[in-house]
Amino acid sequence: MSEIKDQSIQLFLDELASKSATPGGGSVSALMGAQSAALTSMVCNLTIGKPKYAKVEAEMQALLQKSEALREKLTGLIKADVDVFNRLMTAYGLPKETDEDKAARTEAIQTVLKAATEVPLECACACAEAIELSRCAANKGSLGVISDAGAAAMAGYGGLKSAALNVYINTGSLKDRQFAEVKLAELATILKDVDVAVEEIYQMVKAKL
Amino acid sequence: MSEIKDQSIQLFLDELASKSATPGGGSVSALMGAQSAALTSMVCNLTIGKPKYAKVEAEMQALLQKSEALREKLTGLIKADVDVFNRLMTAYGLPKETDEDKAARTEAIQTVLKAATEVPLECACACAEAIELSRCAANKGSLGVISDAGAAAMAGYGGLKSAALNVYINTGSLKDRQFAEVKLAELATILKDVDVAVEEIYQMVKAKL
Repeated sequence: MSEIKDQSIQLFLDELASKSATPGGGSVSALMGAQSAALTSMVCNLTIGKPKYAKVEAEMQALLQKSEALREKLTGLIKADVDVFNRLMTAYGLPKETDEDKAARTEAIQTVLKAATEVPLECACACAEAIELSRCAANKGSLGVISDAGAAAMAGYGGLKSAALNVYINTGSLKDRQFAEVKLAELATILKDVDVAVEEIYQMVKAKL
Repeated sequence: MSEIKDQSIQLFLDELASKSATPGGGSVSALMGAQSAALTSMVCNLTIGKPKYAKVEAEMQALLQKSEALREKLTGLIKADVDVFNRLMTAYGLPKETDEDKAARTEAIQTVLKAATEVPLECACACAEAIELSRCAANKGSLGVISDAGAAAMAGYGGLKSAALNVYINTGSLKDRQFAEVKLAELATILKDVDVAVEEIYQMVKAKL
């Protein structure tokens, strides 16, 4: 099957809606993050070169570099989410006839669960960065496309909160509680104050419309 | 150019990030809404037919019908947003040499601005419905895919709040203040209590993980 990013949007939505287990919420969270980064890039691209915004040109160029790198990362996470989910399904499908089977299966599941925790955590972290980049776009970008900076903040927020759910699920099944607690603490740090930050960016955009 | 839904996700993101004015935040809000509806459909499709969930089978079938109709509507709004934005650009590009030119241009702009208010308002309304459908999915869907119902709520919320920004922009330029106030009142009704609703759904999902 072709990689999701190379599929049409219609096919992606059809497969998302279908009874196949992937793609699911994890891919959607990475795609929302990628949409957020793309919107910030759009604001930069429509601000750069405008005489009225010459003073922020260098900042917009630097922001564009960051948002494009982040977009690439988040686009890659759409696939990473599907891959790790499929690995998890394979591990759960391992034989459990003998005690040896069971031990090997448990170990395989636990190993993949760590990866299945790290992928959405990476996605959450990237979405939080996308939100911060949208703040710069909302702050300094051309007023003609400022609403796109607000949409970038909302897409990043949707991606972050959705990714967090996948971190909660997978840490919940982890036997290595120390690993789980470290990852949950990282997530808590990422989530801290984000509701307030998104509301601030949104209100800043709304006030400029 | 091919319709956005038939483009690959990669191409859509590339064009979103580019300096071309469309697609932009309006298309992203409709796509977030479509992702929300698709995720609710996924929860339904992975709940229907499971003996453990036989009691909610009829409800899930009814929910699936609604979420699939809504997904189709929101997918259509991706294109509608681009179309109305292009019409607006065409109207702004009309000649303004003579007084007659100017009057005709103003009238054309004002006519399209009404359509450009109604498209994101329709999107906001559909996203609010997507959020309510995600609540049913979160309430009654299979626990194995309950996080997807949470992601559906967040995607719908991102779509709704982004669409609202486009309603604010376009009503702001409307000379027909009565029309503008009616549309803003409709939007306010849609937005009322939605923050609380999304937080409720999210916490319900989180508690079930």
